[in-house]
Amino acid sequence: MKIFTVKGAGFCFGVKRALDIAFAMAEKKEKGIYTLGPIIHNPQVIERLREEGISPTEDIYNEDIKSLIIRTHGIPVHLMEEASRRGYGIVDATCPFVKKAQHYAKLLSEAGYQVVILGDKDHPEVKGLVSYAGDGAVVIGEKGPLPRLKSRVGIVVQTTQPVEELKRLAERVIERAKEIKVYNTICNSTANRLTETEDMSRKVDVMIVVGGKNSANTTQLVRLCASMPVKTYHIETAGELKQEWFRGINKVGITAGASTPDWIIHDVKKGIKGTGG
Amino acid sequence: MKIFTVKGAGFCFGVKRALDIAFAMAEKKEKGIYTLGPIIHNPQVIERLREEGISPTEDIYNEDIKSLIIRTHGIPVHLMEEASRRGYGIVDATCPFVKKAQHYAKLLSEAGYQVVILGDKDHPEVKGLVSYAGDGAVVIGEKGPLPRLKSRVGIVVQTTQPVEELKRLAERVIERAKEIKVYNTICNSTANRLTETEDMSRKVDVMIVVGGKNSANTTQLVRLCASMPVKTYHIETAGELKQEWFRGINKVGITAGASTPDWIIHDVKKGIKGTGG
Repeated sequence: MKIFTVKGAGFCFGVKRALDIAFAMAEKKEKGIYTLGPIIHNPQVIERLREEGISPTEDIYNEDIKSLIIRTHGIPVHLMEEASRRGYGIVDATCPFVKKAQHYAKLLSEAGYQVVILGDKDHPEVKGLVSYAGDGAVVIGEKGPLPRLKSRVGIVVQTTQPVEELKRLAERVIERAKEIKVYNTICNSTANRLTETEDMSRKVDVMIVVGGKNSANTTQLVRLCASMPVKTYHIETAGELKQEWFRGINKVGITAGASTPDWIIHDVKKGIKGTGG
Repeated sequence: MKIFTVKGAGFCFGVKRALDIAFAMAEKKEKGIYTLGPIIHNPQVIERLREEGISPTEDIYNEDIKSLIIRTHGIPVHLMEEASRRGYGIVDATCPFVKKAQHYAKLLSEAGYQVVILGDKDHPEVKGLVSYAGDGAVVIGEKGPLPRLKSRVGIVVQTTQPVEELKRLAERVIERAKEIKVYNTICNSTANRLTETEDMSRKVDVMIVVGGKNSANTTQLVRLCASMPVKTYHIETAGELKQEWFRGINKVGITAGASTPDWIIHDVKKGIKGTGG
């Protein structure tokens, strides 16, 4: 059995950077360092950080907070202001690409555009973006209906959206608005990972997608593979692998979301080999 | 035999306005009034104006020119400047929607965008637009290849293009550029005429498209009808109608380009009735 790993699988630039920041903070051995929400969608990494003294908290009013690490997704303006007001040391590990999208949302709003955000309205990144996008901003999901729009519309995109969705949205907005400004804030590493995963899924019999069940970009990889003529399994760790998946199989492909560490990918590879399929 | 005429057939707002301006000029009975190029793509109208003392000229250096009427399509900046330099009385009958497109092309260029003009590079309107669009501007035809683009692209559209072409172009540009600003400068009357013509062509057995053979929007109507399951004929005047087209036919639809006068449409209707098909 041959096992291939997608080139762009695993940690992206923004996640690597955020973890570097977090582990560097940990070295200070200070008390009261928190991340607002889990720093990435990966329980194993969260656990390692907790051992180093950095815990996630959902509560910005948590009285133990001294320093607050902002995770890659970014946070809404009012939370950033509240953290500031409360005198926390703020360590901003927002992904620079998300930061850019926030900046463009603000810019569009200030220039009088009605801001349309393409993305999942429940995703933390999008909740952050909305807070920069001003009054009248709307979030459009993949297949959601388009509300009544003003004649000047500005579009920004959740960084992990597929470019095909942006094209479809632009098409629909062009029918309604007279002036449309699009900032294509889709992150290349997401796009490349999708392309490489699609290519791989054409060459193998089974695809193993490794990543958090609540990770948007992992879910996208799963959906992509499921749409291809290849058997697809979504796992979070090597422990979930089943021997029967690989019986009589010649070629297996591995891909992984942006929040999946290399060592987990490595374990999965070893695990598949161990099945001896 | 029933004959139907498309609601939006014939003169659009800009053409009506330009002709009103020209005939008002004619009333002054001055010498040396010229239009730069034929004022509309309709030989019959040109002839009427000539009888009133207003002739088309292709030559801006024509020594007989005292007053110059700029037609609906507009003209390139350098010609406007030359006309001014030569002391002509300039009567600008550029369609206000074309004027707007020129303005947006300039705005985009000044804001540092690479301007992409969707349209037919040989059409006078597009030649005018290009002159406002600055260095690096490109014209993209319907199926033309997309050249290498900068990361900030601004799009304006020849007013008579179908919105479907704009959607396709936007899709293609989104794949390449990071920031895209689209001014949808497509004129509603063109879009409506196309929609109404499409609806009509579903209900009749024969479509008669009336308009200049060199009129872009008439050609579009012809192409649209030809793509529908309806027999289509393109004529410039009633004289071209043939009896055999209507033999055994129940329902005939008439549509006409933006430069086709009502009296020609009326003649065509009478002509079809006369065939007694």
